[in-house]
Amino acid sequence: MSTGTAVLSPTELLEHWQGLRNLSRRVIEIFPDAHLFTYSIGNMRPFALLAGEMIAIAAPMAREIVSGQSVPYADYEATSKAELLARWDEATAELNEWFAKVPPERFGETITVFGQYTGTVWSHFFYAIDNENHHRGQGYVYLRALGVEPPPFWERGASSAA
Amino acid sequence: MSTGTAVLSPTELLEHWQGLRNLSRRVIEIFPDAHLFTYSIGNMRPFALLAGEMIAIAAPMAREIVSGQSVPYADYEATSKAELLARWDEATAELNEWFAKVPPERFGETITVFGQYTGTVWSHFFYAIDNENHHRGQGYVYLRALGVEPPPFWERGASSAA
Repeated sequence: MSTGTAVLSPTELLEHWQGLRNLSRRVIEIFPDAHLFTYSIGNMRPFALLAGEMIAIAAPMAREIVSGQSVPYADYEATSKAELLARWDEATAELNEWFAKVPPERFGETITVFGQYTGTVWSHFFYAIDNENHHRGQGYVYLRALGVEPPPFWERGASSAA
Repeated sequence: MSTGTAVLSPTELLEHWQGLRNLSRRVIEIFPDAHLFTYSIGNMRPFALLAGEMIAIAAPMAREIVSGQSVPYADYEATSKAELLARWDEATAELNEWFAKVPPERFGETITVFGQYTGTVWSHFFYAIDNENHHRGQGYVYLRALGVEPPPFWERGASSAA
């Protein structure tokens, strides 16, 4: 990409994503324990599995982009909210670490990740972000159906616990 | 933004967004007419209003970024699926037109849109995209709850009708 065509920098993209990830984390936190692993609408996956997918994509994808070592996609399934949140926080640190190692000139490079998805580096990261928004939005419906007020979509700060 | 820090170009961002908008359009198309304006879970808005919000943000935001003329945010409410789809397609053309007029060097500029939201130009566009993914994902839950299979999330081409 040439001078003057930059929409945003890698650092800005990472900060934006981590803001959205803070919001996803708050949805996990606020989700009633009794429903996090079981509640479903229309036979969809419970929110613990949707959040597990976010974890299974973000840091592993960034690691693979840096290392070039293909690792098949593997779902992550926690067994408790505490475990899910702890793994989420590890993933936050891993994503920061690996994302920072992607040279800026590689964002336009076309590569295959998880052994089967081919696209530019930026499009892989965008897929991860779009997919997280998609599934977090679904979590909002679960929460509303359960009578729980979700966090405001526009708030991107760390959770109250952080 | 300096050379070498470009994640993607404005043209790539627009194409990515329009791919996501194709997907949103397909959700409108496939939504059962009897439920598009009425079906709700957890007292949330029906999908016609969520799609109306997408329309009320995308092209008006791009127009305001180009013109500098502040116009308050105004919800869009269609009265039929046909009207909603026709307005969607007008918005697609308007977004292409206005987005192309944003000079690349303005993406990092901090501005206020709709008279109250302040951030960089890129962050405004990202908000629109993130918000659309969020609400379209909610539409997927409505469809699943209604027993309708939504379009695959990873498909971004125009609808079968186009």
